[in-house]
Amino acid sequence: MEVELSHDITFGDCDPAGIVYYPNAFRWMDAAFHKLLREHGGHASLCEKLCAIGIGLADASVRFRRPMRDGERLTLRIVMFEWSRRSVTVHYEGAVDGAAKFSGREVRCLFIKGEGAIVAGDIEPLRQHLEPKNE
Amino acid sequence: MEVELSHDITFGDCDPAGIVYYPNAFRWMDAAFHKLLREHGGHASLCEKLCAIGIGLADASVRFRRPMRDGERLTLRIVMFEWSRRSVTVHYEGAVDGAAKFSGREVRCLFIKGEGAIVAGDIEPLRQHLEPKNE
Amino acid sequence: MEVELSHDITFGDCDPAGIVYYPNAFRWMDAAFHKLLREHGGHASLCEKLCAIGIGLADASVRFRRPMRDGERLTLRIVMFEWSRRSVTVHYEGAVDGAAKFSGREVRCLFIKGEGAIVAGDIEPLRQHLEPKNE
Amino acid sequence: MEVELSHDITFGDCDPAGIVYYPNAFRWMDAAFHKLLREHGGHASLCEKLCAIGIGLADASVRFRRPMRDGERLTLRIVMFEWSRRSVTVHYEGAVDGAAKFSGREVRCLFIKGEGAIVAGDIEPLRQHLEPKNE
Repeated sequence: MEVELSHDITFGDCDPAGIVYYPNAFRWMDAAFHKLLREHGGHASLCEKLCAIGIGLADASVRFRRPMRDGERLTLRIVMFEWSRRSVTVHYEGAVDGAAKFSGREVRCLFIKGEGAIVAGDIEPLRQHLEPKNE
Repeated sequence: MEVELSHDITFGDCDPAGIVYYPNAFRWMDAAFHKLLREHGGHASLCEKLCAIGIGLADASVRFRRPMRDGERLTLRIVMFEWSRRSVTVHYEGAVDGAAKFSGREVRCLFIKGEGAIVAGDIEPLRQHLEPKNE
Repeated sequence: MEVELSHDITFGDCDPAGIVYYPNAFRWMDAAFHKLLREHGGHASLCEKLCAIGIGLADASVRFRRPMRDGERLTLRIVMFEWSRRSVTVHYEGAVDGAAKFSGREVRCLFIKGEGAIVAGDIEPLRQHLEPKNE
Repeated sequence: MEVELSHDITFGDCDPAGIVYYPNAFRWMDAAFHKLLREHGGHASLCEKLCAIGIGLADASVRFRRPMRDGERLTLRIVMFEWSRRSVTVHYEGAVDGAAKFSGREVRCLFIKGEGAIVAGDIEPLRQHLEPKNE
């Protein structure tokens, strides 16, 4: 379940301080997660199979270590999954030329239609797709 | 030091699941912070006064409570500042029609040129601008 | 059918040259168009009524007159509609403090499911919603 | 002076209609242009050499041919340059698996400080960098 996303940081990713505009770090983590999902059919197909509305966010955070700049190639890796009953925490590490730039995490749920509201369903069916148990 | 940002959520803020694409929450928190800075001269002017490169991010997180949708008016408030020696933690609350949608925080530093690297400087000068002590 | 969108240009809308990153002009035109649609039920509701997949783009252009900057308040107006059989051309004018900043146009179609492909359907039903004839 | 940009279209590039949110086409054209500039030192370095503020936009347009979707790999090529005295028009073609998705153009100027205003300077010095004449 290894995923690595490469992104060439461009002028438009940066702000007037000349460094990456920080919300982009979250866009790139989301892109890495969806790259993972695509290896298992993609978000739309997985949601259909799992009768879910979306594999969405309950929480997200990033710790910024060093600024990123136009022209740098970001390598973003998913380094760990932590599964609990109703969510999975995905851990990311972003680096440029081997130097750590940021660490992030997303807490994702399998959102389903409950009684009159959207609720976080059992995450196990998603885990079965992403981490099928060897037998 | 009260700041409130209003944003009419639009089609382009939303993703294929029909709800707000989550990194936008960070864009809106950043916009609220810069709205605050503008009341004190704006980012560029403050950085010049404080000999800083930027008032940038060390950490950022959001806890998502309920999905936000096209057509809703988001009200985003800065609800608290926590000052430490080299950073300030800014707390945000986002709501639609009084219903809480997300809570977030940004840990911001006053980045200055150190010896051969950018470092987080003493945050006190920024505090003097944003929260001048009454005497 | 008058629509005016106000947007406070913020730090994150700008690029390392210190001016608005140009694709944002298109985001703001799209937001103004969806503001118009909301007065008629919104994109999702109109598409359902008109059996359409989307009121999407065939062409878009912007002529940039003067740079826009952090802290400026953009006023974006829809100034004209030109209806043809299968599209409507929407004309926009963006200004700050009365000074013209950019002019844009979007050519939009009512996309419907054709035989094996998405095609641009008759635009008249959309016109009936947006410009009902006085009788 | 050939440039080709590849981009894996992701969930976050798409809108509630399930297709690419159209302003992204302009972000990708801008990224392709900056990829070209990087082969010649990058935007910041070129601007310094040419005493310019920026290589910015006077006009931009895109003609959309077919919708683009999550999971598709976009190949965006710069197919032609047209040089006039104070601007260059850059032509782009975007395709997925060989099928044309959009055609675009950007009219770019070398913006310099004039008397009390930013003006479009002679474009020839930029051409010398991007298309050095063989002798």
